[in-house]
Amino acid sequence: MKLNNHSINRVLIVGGTHGNELTGVYLVKLFQQHPELIHRATFESLTLLANPQAIKAGRRYIDKDLNRSFLEENLEDGTLVNYEDLLAKNINHIYGQNGKYPVDFIVDLHSTTSNMGVTVLLDDDQKFNLQLAAYLSSLHPEIKIYSSGSSGRGKHGLRSRAKFAIGIEVGAIPQGVVNADLFLKTQTIVYATLDYLELYNQNKLPTFSQSFTLYKYLEKIDYPRNEHGEITAMIHPHIQYKDYQALNPSDPMFLTFDGQTITYAGESPAYPIFLNEAAYYEQSTAMCLTQKHQMTI
Amino acid sequence: MKLNNHSINRVLIVGGTHGNELTGVYLVKLFQQHPELIHRATFESLTLLANPQAIKAGRRYIDKDLNRSFLEENLEDGTLVNYEDLLAKNINHIYGQNGKYPVDFIVDLHSTTSNMGVTVLLDDDQKFNLQLAAYLSSLHPEIKIYSSGSSGRGKHGLRSRAKFAIGIEVGAIPQGVVNADLFLKTQTIVYATLDYLELYNQNKLPTFSQSFTLYKYLEKIDYPRNEHGEITAMIHPHIQYKDYQALNPSDPMFLTFDGQTITYAGESPAYPIFLNEAAYYEQSTAMCLTQKHQMTI
Repeated sequence: MKLNNHSINRVLIVGGTHGNELTGVYLVKLFQQHPELIHRATFESLTLLANPQAIKAGRRYIDKDLNRSFLEENLEDGTLVNYEDLLAKNINHIYGQNGKYPVDFIVDLHSTTSNMGVTVLLDDDQKFNLQLAAYLSSLHPEIKIYSSGSSGRGKHGLRSRAKFAIGIEVGAIPQGVVNADLFLKTQTIVYATLDYLELYNQNKLPTFSQSFTLYKYLEKIDYPRNEHGEITAMIHPHIQYKDYQALNPSDPMFLTFDGQTITYAGESPAYPIFLNEAAYYEQSTAMCLTQKHQMTI
Repeated sequence: MKLNNHSINRVLIVGGTHGNELTGVYLVKLFQQHPELIHRATFESLTLLANPQAIKAGRRYIDKDLNRSFLEENLEDGTLVNYEDLLAKNINHIYGQNGKYPVDFIVDLHSTTSNMGVTVLLDDDQKFNLQLAAYLSSLHPEIKIYSSGSSGRGKHGLRSRAKFAIGIEVGAIPQGVVNADLFLKTQTIVYATLDYLELYNQNKLPTFSQSFTLYKYLEKIDYPRNEHGEITAMIHPHIQYKDYQALNPSDPMFLTFDGQTITYAGESPAYPIFLNEAAYYEQSTAMCLTQKHQMTI
């Protein structure tokens, strides 16, 4: 079951793309201390703590979101000199396709304050990434697969620098906190991914189900806000922590600070994720709505 | 049942002592828009968003923790000119006992990433505060009462500026997030506190149980760290989210990043709280151990 003629020669495992998402930071530090954990025979495994200043400061970013800084035209714009703009250019010069050590695959480690369990993030519908998602899903049926493809997000992200990539998004975890259970689960999925790439290179992939559930980005929903841009409502208690559960027409969605319920005005069920993600208050996003698809590759 | 001869004349409700603890921030904003909610006949209710710059930045503090900036000698030290040092002096000049509008009682609203439910924080063993705690506990048996008295923390805190005070600490909530359920529960305890002060002033306090469970500060426990001061372990999954539950000798306490379990070496049970509080990683605190006491006033 060889998927194409290209082997995976170099893999980059990234933590700290957001400096206050500590799961990836400490997992990458562990891999740096124990490189044998990520060593595989058929490819080179590299690690990167992507935003060192943000990690040190315990913040998502210093000047702007690093994971929104990789648009091709931004990387070529010499006038962009914010910390993260410079960092993105540097990462691209090292690991990008025209860089010093171009990488074939990136695993990018994130955490969220939303109750998204272990989610594999896909930025596009490349068959290679979908096949990997199917494999991970067959091994670990409890994980969720989310495609942000139609949001356009993929082009801005660090993962755009490799030929193929996945993100691993785990939660609910507060910013600035390591949760042992989700640390171990992330570690398991990283190893399963590396094993997959190894088997792929060796042309030894086992048979696995080509069918899985895919949550596709539909739209983002902002909080209700007043004329000063301040939020006037919270995620309704009825849906808090209920990422990936159906939100039906007329279901409670927000609760205003003075006690009024705002319901979902959509005409068909949607599946909200990133419900109450801390970093998205400033990005006009109370949740992302997705559609649930049964995929067969 | 008059406890002393002094009435409560002025009450200050404080949110945003830590700028990324949004429960208090949005509750105080609500009270500022709807002062009728906190109006009571026998005293004046004031509100304060304590650290405006930190709230704007979405961070705990700008230069230093405001809630560690109220030590008497610091307030008198003209050379201390960090943002929070100046803020503390300003708050003291307005609301302190020699200030423009001295307050008799402070309710200080906090949130934590630890699973502490609704906790009433006491900084000392003044009978007035203990009586209030007993009242709140009799009305809402699910809340926890914690005394930080023996830690010395009270002297540094904003609440030290009033004659009497409580903190309300709710969790688990990530920094930078409002959780509707805990917002509503905090609101309920604020109203119950104001009602108590009103009944006290009117000498109309009902009979209530003078007995409650008090968790008293014992010691803080740091994370295991390497020679560079970096943490080498996480809160063990066995005790994560188990604030206020007995930690017995030899119980798992930490899990190192490379998979080793570290057990509790104490000789008698303790009750950990502030388990995995994000803000305490930099304060050398993985948890605070408490002792559980049955109090009868």
